[in-house]
Amino acid sequence: MEDIHHTCKWGTGEQWGEAATETGMSRLALSDADKQARDWFVETTQALGCKTTVDEMGNIFAIRPGLKNDKPPTYVGSHLDTQPTGGRYDGILGVTAGVEMLKVLADNWVETEYPVGVVNWTNEEGARFPMSMVSSGVWAGSIPLEKAHNLREVHPGTATQKSELERIGYLGTTPASYEAMPMAAHFELHIEQGPLLEMANKKIGVVTGVQAYKWLTVKVKGRDTHTGTTDLKSRADALLTASKMILHSHKLATAHGALASTGILNLKPGSTNTVPGDVTFSLDIRAKKDSTVAELKALVERNFPKIAAGEDIDSLNHGCTAGLPLSVSITEDFDSPAATFHSDCIHAVQQSALSVLGPNSNSLVMEMTSGAGHDSVYASKRCPTSMIFVPCREGVSHNPREFCEEVDCATGAQVLLESVVRFDRM
Amino acid sequence: MEDIHHTCKWGTGEQWGEAATETGMSRLALSDADKQARDWFVETTQALGCKTTVDEMGNIFAIRPGLKNDKPPTYVGSHLDTQPTGGRYDGILGVTAGVEMLKVLADNWVETEYPVGVVNWTNEEGARFPMSMVSSGVWAGSIPLEKAHNLREVHPGTATQKSELERIGYLGTTPASYEAMPMAAHFELHIEQGPLLEMANKKIGVVTGVQAYKWLTVKVKGRDTHTGTTDLKSRADALLTASKMILHSHKLATAHGALASTGILNLKPGSTNTVPGDVTFSLDIRAKKDSTVAELKALVERNFPKIAAGEDIDSLNHGCTAGLPLSVSITEDFDSPAATFHSDCIHAVQQSALSVLGPNSNSLVMEMTSGAGHDSVYASKRCPTSMIFVPCREGVSHNPREFCEEVDCATGAQVLLESVVRFDRM
Ligand SMILES: NC(=O)NCCC(=O)O
Ligand SMILES: NC(=O)NCCC(=O)O
Repeated sequence: MEDIHHTCKWGTGEQWGEAATETGMSRLALSDADKQARDWFVETTQALGCKTTVDEMGNIFAIRPGLKNDKPPTYVGSHLDTQPTGGRYDGILGVTAGVEMLKVLADNWVETEYPVGVVNWTNEEGARFPMSMVSSGVWAGSIPLEKAHNLREVHPGTATQKSELERIGYLGTTPASYEAMPMAAHFELHIEQGPLLEMANKKIGVVTGVQAYKWLTVKVKGRDTHTGTTDLKSRADALLTASKMILHSHKLATAHGALASTGILNLKPGSTNTVPGDVTFSLDIRAKKDSTVAELKALVERNFPKIAAGEDIDSLNHGCTAGLPLSVSITEDFDSPAATFHSDCIHAVQQSALSVLGPNSNSLVMEMTSGAGHDSVYASKRCPTSMIFVPCREGVSHNPREFCEEVDCATGAQVLLESVVRFDRM
Repeated sequence: MEDIHHTCKWGTGEQWGEAATETGMSRLALSDADKQARDWFVETTQALGCKTTVDEMGNIFAIRPGLKNDKPPTYVGSHLDTQPTGGRYDGILGVTAGVEMLKVLADNWVETEYPVGVVNWTNEEGARFPMSMVSSGVWAGSIPLEKAHNLREVHPGTATQKSELERIGYLGTTPASYEAMPMAAHFELHIEQGPLLEMANKKIGVVTGVQAYKWLTVKVKGRDTHTGTTDLKSRADALLTASKMILHSHKLATAHGALASTGILNLKPGSTNTVPGDVTFSLDIRAKKDSTVAELKALVERNFPKIAAGEDIDSLNHGCTAGLPLSVSITEDFDSPAATFHSDCIHAVQQSALSVLGPNSNSLVMEMTSGAGHDSVYASKRCPTSMIFVPCREGVSHNPREFCEEVDCATGAQVLLESVVRFDRM
């Protein structure tokens, strides 16, 4: 808890409670605040006897030698970047619990069979540079380095991931690759970010996999015109059309038991008395199965152009004046197929949870899949992986009020430590 | 035409055609480009023998003495500011035609009975500082000076109208008031900004009045949450809710033969994987009658909170998952009641149009009301007023492609000149 709150002085966000620690976080990837948190991570892990390596994506690997060093380390990994209005636990809990593991091993003179490590992955959130888990994605060979380096800021600006890595001094020379930095396994402790554990009164979620998702960018092109002189039928109103699309995507998601969300919307020119001719918005589609996400994407690609052309999808046009036709273009920016974790790691987490929670704790542990993406998704492509979830208040995340009880943080950290040690022994 | 194109080098916008003059304009009120256009206006009118006065709102009055000077001048007025993606005619035609009037009077050694003047009104568009016609509004005593001075930029920034007036050197000392700067009459030449003249093959619109409008700001408050872990029923999605409101406002407008438009929408926090908790958008409502605008506003104030609470207005929720309730607040930022122009001025325009267009030109002239607001609305509260409309291509305005044929500009300018001379003689 000390490390969490100490490091949260870099990028502190909105104050929502009385206590000094009752604030959110706003530590966008590769910002100055992120650099400060990174510097802390490097200094702290080095002081605990680790060797640190920074790769071409700014991922930082801290390795503590084992008795034997001819096999790759078992890793704990997560991220120190946050959402623009995020909380103190998403990612941060996982990295600080990794550092805590290093401390406990050192304090107790424990030597592991093989090395263990802690990795801080760059830009897990995808909030500033719009691909989530992008740097574990490069490490896994799933995302080309070039593409990741050239990724531009979401909000007006010219910075790329590469230029910002350079600027804050975290553009390393080690290839960002599972071959250069191999892992025996990857464990990640994280707040659930949803309400299931809390609602079911569980203490630990044993994560068996992660749902699928895609991020699309939708550009609607109409015509700028005067709001006072252009009758409704002579308009090509890109915002009215985008509103229909957003509503339609929600209805599609409802019909498919899936999720559809728009978190970013920008329009031009942005004047009270001009009907906007250009709207660009993000669409995040998620479902348990890859096939559902693919189907939703296909429906969006089929129906959005119809909505733009004026067809009455979902009876949304009922009571509307038909305007002029608009056009729409849709690009896929990011794709994270459903992930299934490794039975060895799942087993290690399960055993550790029961051991930490004590006799008859079966009812406090639950298997679950993750709704959010995590670096463990990409890690799982190249090494045995699992995750440990702990409950967070009302399931709220990506919000300054995100909150995890101290005791739950501690339980999770203990399960993480034991999982790593179990895997190492295995 | 020379003055139009010469002054459009300050704040040139998007190029849409081959010719050097085929560009839009982006000359926001009180920008550096606006200062350059103002300097030109002051120098040019002074060189034509005018005395210029700048008032506390930066309105610039250029007065050419008459034979007698014991009565107020008959004015031509319009504006040199533009939309962010506007054209070369909206406002600019009116001011340059006023300057042309001064030249023609000078070239022909014409002396008027009483003084005549040309006024460049500040921030007619309301695009940068979100009240349209704000400085003629202060002059008319309809908008308090304080309120106008303290008006802030729409887009993130700290500038106010007063700070920008000071910065560009156009914060005058003369009170912005019809008492300090009285007018015998106010004539304004403007492109129609709508398609009616073109469709009806008319050359001159004799404007008898202006429709009513109000500008509202709508703030929707939900909750930031994670797009991947928050099921649809646990969301308070401010953008989904705003989309329903935008669609509903369009349906209300359709049902009332009115207009409703959203030109600005900002959301927070603006991250692909965060459901936005805050959305703020503008709503511009217009109708011929004040009572219709008032009724639409009342319906918006009654129904938007219901939409936020989850009620199924317009069956928009059909097929949607009901989420958590949200809240909404609505403020009125600007109100421009319907205006009726003065029969003396209307008559002067009508007579001048027939005189300029020649024998049997009755079929080329049309009486009409304006869909857009103009400084003539506020002028009409304090002096006899009318406007002259000329056709613009496809009725498009607030768009870089806004276009008015040279011959139509010239005809309009000639009608303007004759209207002023007629009124002066009267
Ligand atoms: N854990 C987390 O919030 N990850 C961000 C990636 C996602 O959008 O799911
Ligand atoms: N003429 C013009 O575009 N005026 C702007 C004020 C309005 O919104 O109608």
